[in-house]
Amino acid sequence: MTQKEDAINLHRMLRGKIEITSRVSPDNIFDDDEGNNQGTLTSIYTPGVAFVSEEIKKNIELAYEYTSKWNNVAIICDGTRVLGLGNIGPEAALPVMEGKSVLFKTLANVNAYPLCISMSDKSKIIEFVKSIQPSFGAINIEDIESPKVLEIVEQLQKELSIPVFHDDRHGTAVITLAALINALRIVKKEIQNVKVVIAGAGSAGYGIYKILHRVGIKDILVLDSRGIISSNRRDIASSLNDRSSQKNQTLLEHSTTNEFKIEIASNTNKSNVNGDIKIALSKSDVFIGTSGIADMLNEKLIHSMNENPIIFALSNPHPEIMPEVAKKSGASIVATGRSDFPNQINNAVVFPAIFRVLLDLRMKNLDEDILITVSKSIADLVDNKHLNELYIIPKINDPRILPIVTKSVKEYLTNQQPF
Amino acid sequence: MTQKEDAINLHRMLRGKIEITSRVSPDNIFDDDEGNNQGTLTSIYTPGVAFVSEEIKKNIELAYEYTSKWNNVAIICDGTRVLGLGNIGPEAALPVMEGKSVLFKTLANVNAYPLCISMSDKSKIIEFVKSIQPSFGAINIEDIESPKVLEIVEQLQKELSIPVFHDDRHGTAVITLAALINALRIVKKEIQNVKVVIAGAGSAGYGIYKILHRVGIKDILVLDSRGIISSNRRDIASSLNDRSSQKNQTLLEHSTTNEFKIEIASNTNKSNVNGDIKIALSKSDVFIGTSGIADMLNEKLIHSMNENPIIFALSNPHPEIMPEVAKKSGASIVATGRSDFPNQINNAVVFPAIFRVLLDLRMKNLDEDILITVSKSIADLVDNKHLNELYIIPKINDPRILPIVTKSVKEYLTNQQPF
Repeated sequence: MTQKEDAINLHRMLRGKIEITSRVSPDNIFDDDEGNNQGTLTSIYTPGVAFVSEEIKKNIELAYEYTSKWNNVAIICDGTRVLGLGNIGPEAALPVMEGKSVLFKTLANVNAYPLCISMSDKSKIIEFVKSIQPSFGAINIEDIESPKVLEIVEQLQKELSIPVFHDDRHGTAVITLAALINALRIVKKEIQNVKVVIAGAGSAGYGIYKILHRVGIKDILVLDSRGIISSNRRDIASSLNDRSSQKNQTLLEHSTTNEFKIEIASNTNKSNVNGDIKIALSKSDVFIGTSGIADMLNEKLIHSMNENPIIFALSNPHPEIMPEVAKKSGASIVATGRSDFPNQINNAVVFPAIFRVLLDLRMKNLDEDILITVSKSIADLVDNKHLNELYIIPKINDPRILPIVTKSVKEYLTNQQPF
Repeated sequence: MTQKEDAINLHRMLRGKIEITSRVSPDNIFDDDEGNNQGTLTSIYTPGVAFVSEEIKKNIELAYEYTSKWNNVAIICDGTRVLGLGNIGPEAALPVMEGKSVLFKTLANVNAYPLCISMSDKSKIIEFVKSIQPSFGAINIEDIESPKVLEIVEQLQKELSIPVFHDDRHGTAVITLAALINALRIVKKEIQNVKVVIAGAGSAGYGIYKILHRVGIKDILVLDSRGIISSNRRDIASSLNDRSSQKNQTLLEHSTTNEFKIEIASNTNKSNVNGDIKIALSKSDVFIGTSGIADMLNEKLIHSMNENPIIFALSNPHPEIMPEVAKKSGASIVATGRSDFPNQINNAVVFPAIFRVLLDLRMKNLDEDILITVSKSIADLVDNKHLNELYIIPKINDPRILPIVTKSVKEYLTNQQPF
């Protein structure tokens, strides 16, 4: 059977990869027929539950003690940018979000509720997420188009009292850095000295730029659909002017650029190189693809890179280059986002563990330094004996991930000593 | 231990009465260490899941085949009228909604997602529910204050393509009628000839009036906080005038009356009796309390009723009169909404089964005639041999409820022959 047939058959058989189950056994809920064995119905439902509600009313904090709120995550998706498939709508996003929910539960015992919504207006999504706050311990934003989603998350992080994680940005950045640290161990290059090209300036590209910049990489080029982002590229430059002259922000919102690309331009590409992927890749050490463009790389482009090039073709399900082609073209280390190739750089390696920590520690904010700490702890799981070009990051189900992420974040919070 | 201690201890121990679980066993997800046994990860997650998403994109209907949508119900509550506790907020509503979710799953295998939300504006709640439509097969509206909620539900039923059930209105009406049919069998009165007093004109009171009117009861009096609702009561009369002169509807919204009370006035109280509960109850046969006012009834009031009075004191957790007091005062048959007394008239007897039918038959609308059909089928479950003053309706966990409700609705849809 083909991969497609496999997937569709499994979904047709399951009709839902997740379900809501009761934590109270049916045997313990109802009185027996003779009315002797008293069930718990009077406690879990009216009248007893009213006492519980009244206690929470007096002290909202008790919702964490008496309900599943402490362990509930809402997965919010409007279906506008699902995997690399683009705007496929909220219904079509559901199987992906149910898949994430399976991983949440299986790997970190988190209850993740897929909420695929039909509103896609920025302010309405913000309002939606704010309104569901009472039922959840944390929010996971998934597969919403950029730059809208970056603005939504920044706003939500300011306004909510529970943590907001943006999987496409934060999760992808953490696992990409972990993979890069280990790939560079193999090719014996110093992370501060490499030249990195990031194709794609959406959520993932922005998150990766942000963490690599913070970790000290000086030579980063980021490309969007118009080529290398630079401070003197016409659209960026005029936005910079608009901003300095405080022109209407709405102009910015409808142009090919946005505040996040302006930030990228300010912190990368010091020599203001302009051009396409060919110019960008020349004499680079690392390619990281988050472009959603299948087969954008080829042999010739890889040949133009420095010795021992590292290729992370992360677009899903169609990578920027298939691993066997990249290898044949001379790539030293190849990784993709897919689970059917070696070196899966997928946020699924980290998001379950990160949410476990967010929930358990009731953390509100996740800054870049905590993300770097997590990356490093995950990279460390691959010891020198096992590290090789086909094994640079632990597999999604490596049982060491959850404890090491918990430990490293706790230590970070104690010491506040970033990587 | 007291009932309160029991309930709080159980909730503290469970920290959540429900959870999200994976329908895929962890053993079947991941490849084994040697990479021999191929897990299903490539199907449930990227890349395989992308094929499933693409199929749904082409045909949204397939979301019912490939995801849990067919079996998902959203329980929507803003915490403004929880049980009889009033406006206790969305966090305090959570334990009640989790309790309902337990009953949904245990009794009818429905996945019910409690969504307790912090927005309480009518139009925003409507927008919220519309936006979650892609993820769910049906909507259950719970414990939102009236009359706002009645308007919300009417609007949603018009605008959504999935069924919208209002538990406090529809569920309570169905089980109350079932109980009344059987109570009248015991006291040997014809349903068309009894005089019924309904205390409370919120969601439950409105729903009960509506179903009793439809079933043919001619003598119904409904009371709100200002007494018996009548066409010549000042506030109702002036609203009627406003309406006939097409004055601004917003005036209506802020008065003590509303369009639902105006409807009640038009269809009940033919002789335009005005006054309080004392006047209403005189020479009545049935009292149905949905008032939220504990101990509003007393011995003297019950004495003023006709022979063999029937008392349904449904407010939760504090009924309008405690069963033992009602009995001592001469009530022939007493019922409450609580699970710790006999004759529990609680919508929990019917909502799990009704949702099973709504989901399985993909029904869009639930009119009063279908509700009456369900009431009758549930009343019929109590045969003459078992019927007695302490057993007028089946218990919540009676295994015959689900099949009989399914059968009766299917027959109704085939014959379109209401009760």
